[in-house]
Amino acid sequence: MPRPDGRTADQLRPVTFTRGWAEHAEGSALVEFGRTRVICTASVTEGVPRWRKGSGLGWVTAEYAMLPRSTNTRSDRESVKGKIGGRTHEISRLIGRSLRAVIDEKALGENTVVLDCDVLQADGGTRTAAITGAYVALADAVSWLKERKLVKGEPLRGTVSAVSVGIIAGEPRLDLCYEEDVAAETDMNVVMTGDGRFVEVQGTAEGAPFDRAELDALLELAAGGCTQLGVLQLEALGR
Amino acid sequence: MPRPDGRTADQLRPVTFTRGWAEHAEGSALVEFGRTRVICTASVTEGVPRWRKGSGLGWVTAEYAMLPRSTNTRSDRESVKGKIGGRTHEISRLIGRSLRAVIDEKALGENTVVLDCDVLQADGGTRTAAITGAYVALADAVSWLKERKLVKGEPLRGTVSAVSVGIIAGEPRLDLCYEEDVAAETDMNVVMTGDGRFVEVQGTAEGAPFDRAELDALLELAAGGCTQLGVLQLEALGR
Amino acid sequence: MPRPDGRTADQLRPVTFTRGWAEHAEGSALVEFGRTRVICTASVTEGVPRWRKGSGLGWVTAEYAMLPRSTNTRSDRESVKGKIGGRTHEISRLIGRSLRAVIDEKALGENTVVLDCDVLQADGGTRTAAITGAYVALADAVSWLKERKLVKGEPLRGTVSAVSVGIIAGEPRLDLCYEEDVAAETDMNVVMTGDGRFVEVQGTAEGAPFDRAELDALLELAAGGCTQLGVLQLEALGR
Amino acid sequence: MPRPDGRTADQLRPVTFTRGWAEHAEGSALVEFGRTRVICTASVTEGVPRWRKGSGLGWVTAEYAMLPRSTNTRSDRESVKGKIGGRTHEISRLIGRSLRAVIDEKALGENTVVLDCDVLQADGGTRTAAITGAYVALADAVSWLKERKLVKGEPLRGTVSAVSVGIIAGEPRLDLCYEEDVAAETDMNVVMTGDGRFVEVQGTAEGAPFDRAELDALLELAAGGCTQLGVLQLEALGR
Amino acid sequence: MPRPDGRTADQLRPVTFTRGWAEHAEGSALVEFGRTRVICTASVTEGVPRWRKGSGLGWVTAEYAMLPRSTNTRSDRESVKGKIGGRTHEISRLIGRSLRAVIDEKALGENTVVLDCDVLQADGGTRTAAITGAYVALADAVSWLKERKLVKGEPLRGTVSAVSVGIIAGEPRLDLCYEEDVAAETDMNVVMTGDGRFVEVQGTAEGAPFDRAELDALLELAAGGCTQLGVLQLEALGR
Amino acid sequence: MPRPDGRTADQLRPVTFTRGWAEHAEGSALVEFGRTRVICTASVTEGVPRWRKGSGLGWVTAEYAMLPRSTNTRSDRESVKGKIGGRTHEISRLIGRSLRAVIDEKALGENTVVLDCDVLQADGGTRTAAITGAYVALADAVSWLKERKLVKGEPLRGTVSAVSVGIIAGEPRLDLCYEEDVAAETDMNVVMTGDGRFVEVQGTAEGAPFDRAELDALLELAAGGCTQLGVLQLEALGR
Repeated sequence: MPRPDGRTADQLRPVTFTRGWAEHAEGSALVEFGRTRVICTASVTEGVPRWRKGSGLGWVTAEYAMLPRSTNTRSDRESVKGKIGGRTHEISRLIGRSLRAVIDEKALGENTVVLDCDVLQADGGTRTAAITGAYVALADAVSWLKERKLVKGEPLRGTVSAVSVGIIAGEPRLDLCYEEDVAAETDMNVVMTGDGRFVEVQGTAEGAPFDRAELDALLELAAGGCTQLGVLQLEALGR
Repeated sequence: MPRPDGRTADQLRPVTFTRGWAEHAEGSALVEFGRTRVICTASVTEGVPRWRKGSGLGWVTAEYAMLPRSTNTRSDRESVKGKIGGRTHEISRLIGRSLRAVIDEKALGENTVVLDCDVLQADGGTRTAAITGAYVALADAVSWLKERKLVKGEPLRGTVSAVSVGIIAGEPRLDLCYEEDVAAETDMNVVMTGDGRFVEVQGTAEGAPFDRAELDALLELAAGGCTQLGVLQLEALGR
Repeated sequence: MPRPDGRTADQLRPVTFTRGWAEHAEGSALVEFGRTRVICTASVTEGVPRWRKGSGLGWVTAEYAMLPRSTNTRSDRESVKGKIGGRTHEISRLIGRSLRAVIDEKALGENTVVLDCDVLQADGGTRTAAITGAYVALADAVSWLKERKLVKGEPLRGTVSAVSVGIIAGEPRLDLCYEEDVAAETDMNVVMTGDGRFVEVQGTAEGAPFDRAELDALLELAAGGCTQLGVLQLEALGR
Repeated sequence: MPRPDGRTADQLRPVTFTRGWAEHAEGSALVEFGRTRVICTASVTEGVPRWRKGSGLGWVTAEYAMLPRSTNTRSDRESVKGKIGGRTHEISRLIGRSLRAVIDEKALGENTVVLDCDVLQADGGTRTAAITGAYVALADAVSWLKERKLVKGEPLRGTVSAVSVGIIAGEPRLDLCYEEDVAAETDMNVVMTGDGRFVEVQGTAEGAPFDRAELDALLELAAGGCTQLGVLQLEALGR
Repeated sequence: MPRPDGRTADQLRPVTFTRGWAEHAEGSALVEFGRTRVICTASVTEGVPRWRKGSGLGWVTAEYAMLPRSTNTRSDRESVKGKIGGRTHEISRLIGRSLRAVIDEKALGENTVVLDCDVLQADGGTRTAAITGAYVALADAVSWLKERKLVKGEPLRGTVSAVSVGIIAGEPRLDLCYEEDVAAETDMNVVMTGDGRFVEVQGTAEGAPFDRAELDALLELAAGGCTQLGVLQLEALGR
Repeated sequence: MPRPDGRTADQLRPVTFTRGWAEHAEGSALVEFGRTRVICTASVTEGVPRWRKGSGLGWVTAEYAMLPRSTNTRSDRESVKGKIGGRTHEISRLIGRSLRAVIDEKALGENTVVLDCDVLQADGGTRTAAITGAYVALADAVSWLKERKLVKGEPLRGTVSAVSVGIIAGEPRLDLCYEEDVAAETDMNVVMTGDGRFVEVQGTAEGAPFDRAELDALLELAAGGCTQLGVLQLEALGR
């Protein structure tokens, strides 16, 4: 089974960032990984949640959602169902943790940044695209804070990005599209900093369990992908 | 108080429709009224809700929502709050009724079309933009059904569009942006068919009650705006 | 199709107000429009919601609901379902806006009045009966505040009432009962002040869209009905 | 402390039943125990809940609620809060059990009767008034079924009524009003059949625990009250 | 029908208390009535709910729940269903009231004790076992408070315990197991203090209504059971 | 920082399984990892969820929850809050996926097994203890099915267990207790089959991101722990 879009096994889909797509937000980016399209906005508010007040530390959190028809078949809205599903919860928490890994909460001071990642169109890898795009929105929100001298020092410790990898028909592949994601025996999401260290590693055997050699191959592939994404993020930010 | 963007009192904002923006949907349009930006998708499914089964009639319904940071200040997600607010309910119902006004439910047969209108960016007039854009998405979904011979005859009876009007500092104005909407003494949303008849008229005195002459002036202005929107819809659909 | 109760097209049903029906409330009225029966209570509390504190302005809001067996077929309770439906939300908001139109929030001072309108028996026009009856309850609650010198000046700017109108078999009719409401091609609810100005106009094409002449005829009919209702309200209040 | 309304310790408040108050229901009664006022409606539907289908047995259930301003201080609506409180649940279940005690479910056949008991005005004893009034509504609904020959035989086995008793300042009293209810050291609700047997006994020490002699005195008083209520019910039903 | 476990009609099942079963809690007891097994924990926090602040009085409350597979057939979790059922509400309230009957709220001072009673295995009488076990957990929590000198005087006024009784095949029996509970014509839960007074009496006719003689027999039986339970509680507490 | 309980870095806490602890369930085990105590029950029902009907395949799912006072500070019940938190959702999904990895759904046939994992006492590693204990309950439920000839062939493909590992003060450690979990810079949960392959790998940088060497050390440690757990599981099952 060759890749549906003719990529090599270690090749990313075309990745683009459109900064400032949401004009009201302090930072925003429309991120595209091939046909996967996520709008990420960063909303800054003064102050922190009650449990953190007086600590001098800032707070970064995230919420992920999919538009009902971002997928091939329409899904019911979670607002209409009256509750958030497990998958949504899980991904929102992952995005929040990933971004906090590159935030110096002391330098951020008692400010809160909420990252909203809304999937407009889904073709696999929406959570990793969301993390990668949310970083760009966050970087712009931090610049916004710095321009207004609302923070001292540098709240951003570096870049963070994420990519999915998986084994399809025995072959480890980078950045799976939906068709590959469904066919994968093993599926892994890896979040890494720009200097090549791991923030999150989440590997799941969808079919048969995987052995250590397969795990190593996937980690290798992911590390290469995240390095490229880090470069693209910095380019998009004009650095 | 002149108009913030220099328009004349009876001038629409630049209106554009980007068809096919959501590739998975049977019909879709990204509609823009100035800075207001709404993605409208039409999802077709075979069959109708239980209460309509066996009637031979189709069903068209709509759901409206705003992204948390589509507005100047971030709003909490209704999915997180666990319930849909009154305003969201009200607008979803209005969009559904408006589109059903141009649907021949018999010709549609036992098929359902759900229109999802998600506001990506808000600058006033989101409900009227949603109706106007949803019509384009619906028209494409109906074409999709006709191409596949899933309907007999013509389910669409004509076009439908909507516009807001209001009185600001005593002057009746067409297609209010957010700044004007907030300042309006009277605010009216009008939904009309392409042949100049009314589907919905919803006028509200925000400040002092309005008299019959003011009501007449607003209806006149709205009729002009809807006529222009109907032409733009047909152009966008290539007719 | 003649009117089911033999009325002329521009005739109201018998309208009665029983003041003080709910002995615990600061103001209350059982309002009847024919067989439609709504208990309206006005509850006064010192203080205003958080977002209005310190403004010096009062607040008036409303909640509408129907008893499960107020209708021909029993409906499930919204408390049991765990959420409020769109129609309930919409009507509650309409009643609140309508009454605020005749309230001088400055004169009311930082007091809150909640109007509860519970439909005991429904035969069409429940929302318009609710507005009309809630005004009477509100007027009594304002008197209660004035007697206790809890407000300065006059918080009430005048009367407000509402009526439904519609076109049945081509004929514009005033104050529709349920049977007519179901049969109406066009249905309009109009809220007006005692001096003949409009607070809300909500017209909906249930069948074919309506033209300007039909709209004008309905507005005319509604204006006549509201004038009569204003007189009846003042009589009930002994003024 | 004498009784606020001058009654003797074993005297009921004036009790009235207004049958047919809710015109849409198959049976209904507005019941008043002094200032406590509850509208009870009985709604008949063919068929039974899923878990009882095919059993040949009928089903009777009840829902209790209070209007927001039935009490001295306004309560938030349970529909707005999005959930039903423990007290409401408890009372609804009590009413349902009480009425099922006099129903022959076999004779009722696969029909369902839902009793809705909505407290319009509360002055103590709302749950016991609800049971007593619901019986009258139920009896009329059963007559409705019998007239239409929808049941065979007699689904009603006899009457059922309820009353509250309590100890105030050491004195056992019948049918407590709100002021007494609040002051009671011990509070008991007793549900009895017309032939003097017990369906429910619910006694609670609000202050100090009570001894067996006190319990016996309360049971005696309740038995007397229920006997009187049974007579009043039959009178109201014209038997 | 003899008793399934060969007991005499007035005999309790083997009752055991394992104190300190939950090591994190200020007081805890695993209580067993035969195969019925409930873990009761007492959680102490400084302060009281908002509505009680500044009163100088403490607060004791309880929550009851069943593990999904504590019963013969698995039940859905109330957390998954999103709401608490009427039975759970009712029992939680009963446990709270029962324990408050032996608490001197003044001596407790502004401290709160929450009793959590989670049924690990159910074989009838879970609510009465919960009350009986919660008393032991509460007594340990009160000792914990006294050791830390967080209360003055003695917050505990005495013991409280509960037992179920019922009439099976005409015979009054003590402490029903599940099989008997299901077969009972009349079912009663009685909560009593160690000195033989009543806190709660809740009797329900499951089949035919019961007469005064049956009620007296059940009260007698329950009084005997509670006396024994009070002794066992004190033994468990080493007093 | 030495280990609080004096273990070596690669040593498990004492692990015990008490089979049959919940007598009603088809399979059950009380699993203890030191002071962490989880009751795991397996409930078998004939049939599968609607979306799987007719496939011939079985279904295994899991629900995880914590008793309110299983932790050092009492948590509010999710049933009372009316919704399940993100962490609960995430862990329930993880347990379900882990157990499905060793189930042959074809051999299971159209039967459903629900694993309920309720944490009675928490001292770190509750999710890994839950997976490890749930396997034992599942194995007993499968035996129950086989004894009754309700399945053909062998639905269990092998054992599965899980353990937490983490880096504390630079040292990789196996099976963290709560005190260590809080102090860990990196935290990883690893789920493995008895033959040493991976089902899930979830590593999270709590403090600084981790490098590849640290990741390798943790994977090594986890593999050793899971091997031991697999042996203990088989011993407990008497194989």
